[in-house]
Amino acid sequence: MTNVERITAALQAYMKAEMPEELRKAMEYSLLAGGKRLRPMLCLSACEMTGGQLETALPLACALEMIHTYSLIHDDLPCMDDDDFRRGRPSNHKVFGEANALLAGDGLLSFAFEVMLSEGPKHVAVAPRYYEAAAEIARGAGVNGMVAGQWKDLANEKNPSADAATLTDIHTRKTGALITAAVLAGGMAGKADAAEMKALRAFGAHFGVLFQITDDLLDVEGDEKTVGKTLGKDAAHEKLTYPALYGVSASRRMAEEEARLAEDALAPFGERAVWFIELTEQTLTRTF
Amino acid sequence: MTNVERITAALQAYMKAEMPEELRKAMEYSLLAGGKRLRPMLCLSACEMTGGQLETALPLACALEMIHTYSLIHDDLPCMDDDDFRRGRPSNHKVFGEANALLAGDGLLSFAFEVMLSEGPKHVAVAPRYYEAAAEIARGAGVNGMVAGQWKDLANEKNPSADAATLTDIHTRKTGALITAAVLAGGMAGKADAAEMKALRAFGAHFGVLFQITDDLLDVEGDEKTVGKTLGKDAAHEKLTYPALYGVSASRRMAEEEARLAEDALAPFGERAVWFIELTEQTLTRTF
Repeated sequence: MTNVERITAALQAYMKAEMPEELRKAMEYSLLAGGKRLRPMLCLSACEMTGGQLETALPLACALEMIHTYSLIHDDLPCMDDDDFRRGRPSNHKVFGEANALLAGDGLLSFAFEVMLSEGPKHVAVAPRYYEAAAEIARGAGVNGMVAGQWKDLANEKNPSADAATLTDIHTRKTGALITAAVLAGGMAGKADAAEMKALRAFGAHFGVLFQITDDLLDVEGDEKTVGKTLGKDAAHEKLTYPALYGVSASRRMAEEEARLAEDALAPFGERAVWFIELTEQTLTRTF
Repeated sequence: MTNVERITAALQAYMKAEMPEELRKAMEYSLLAGGKRLRPMLCLSACEMTGGQLETALPLACALEMIHTYSLIHDDLPCMDDDDFRRGRPSNHKVFGEANALLAGDGLLSFAFEVMLSEGPKHVAVAPRYYEAAAEIARGAGVNGMVAGQWKDLANEKNPSADAATLTDIHTRKTGALITAAVLAGGMAGKADAAEMKALRAFGAHFGVLFQITDDLLDVEGDEKTVGKTLGKDAAHEKLTYPALYGVSASRRMAEEEARLAEDALAPFGERAVWFIELTEQTLTRTF
């Protein structure tokens, strides 16, 4: 069983908890829709790299995926980005209706913490910093993390004076905060010492920016291949992106630089960091 | 300082955490808008009654109020109940817009767990069941608790075959679950033994139903005094309520019975339960 399969199996198992059947369907529609499982993989891999037990990181990893998924469902709502599609399928509210999609998102966010807290007693003896890891995830998801990023992103739509510092701040929070929380939580579920935690934090910060730049670049390429409605919608939103602010070539150079810094940050782990280095390389090259 | 003042002061202090200023305003608009502070008061009072330290229950109590507030903000959104007013003021989305209200709600839910988890290390030595209490709150707020209740409430709007069992199930979850979680969390932050926890659970269950029946009765009385738009909106939703299903007189008798059962449940606490008995009496008489 690969780690991605372990994560999917654990998500499926958690989703067997008691809840209304139709709510379960709406949550599973988005949670089990595939996706790269990037955040849970970062968490599991950081735990393994720092000598921890994979089982200890699994509830934290699943919570990260639930939080990420809730943010996508709420982001797609008509009052937010108004996206009709996600991962090639109709978005949650197009299938279940707006009110139910709102509640499916609320449900996933609540369930993330329910899972982490309910599983705590099982894991805290092996991983004394288990609850500290859950707190890190809460902060990454929260009002100075992901929610702050979404708030600022909205506030700066169609803001002609938005600058590079604003763009960096938005994405550091919107994407970077939960990614960084994922690797830190993994390190805490493992046996990372202070120096290793510092290295994980630096990796998370640079990898988060790399991921966002390449995401923006993929969107540009997507738009170039797309016509009509989708393009019109994106243009109407006038999102602040790296290519929009710096151009495509400069954005690619910035991505390369962030990839280099992310890999440099992994030096303390030596050969144990191979998964993280491969991930960084794959993330960088997905735009070329 | 009264306990209500302590709760408000603690909420104000937590809200000084780092976050975007405009997001803070939107969250504070609803969180610090007054309200009875019922859930946090239940939590603090249960902690005090069972010999705990008030400070230990304070982050749990504040989290309960944040969760309750997020649920009101999301409930008022156009895609849900579409309420323009809350507590006599324009609802959150009427002031800040739908997208920002959605995020203010997401922010409050996330912040509730951030506060409980970040404060944990301070309290767990005094209250070893602190994280268990946080888990209880997560379950009360979650997909088999409050979110399930909201889901089922929506699903049964305009359902002519909805029956008494459905009504009870909806309100046990929508209102009762977080109220019961509040008293249980207070008992865990205190020194409640198994028999006392059982008594608190029984009190929570009956008090929750009492609270919902009286809330429904107040709405009926409100409607009788109201004209035009508000009444039209309520009628359009055709909410499943106690008075709608049983009539006003029978609902009042049911409220009396639940109040009696709630007070009976408090017997093991003897005179220490005076706050809970007064609350029950006040809640019952608010409808007469």
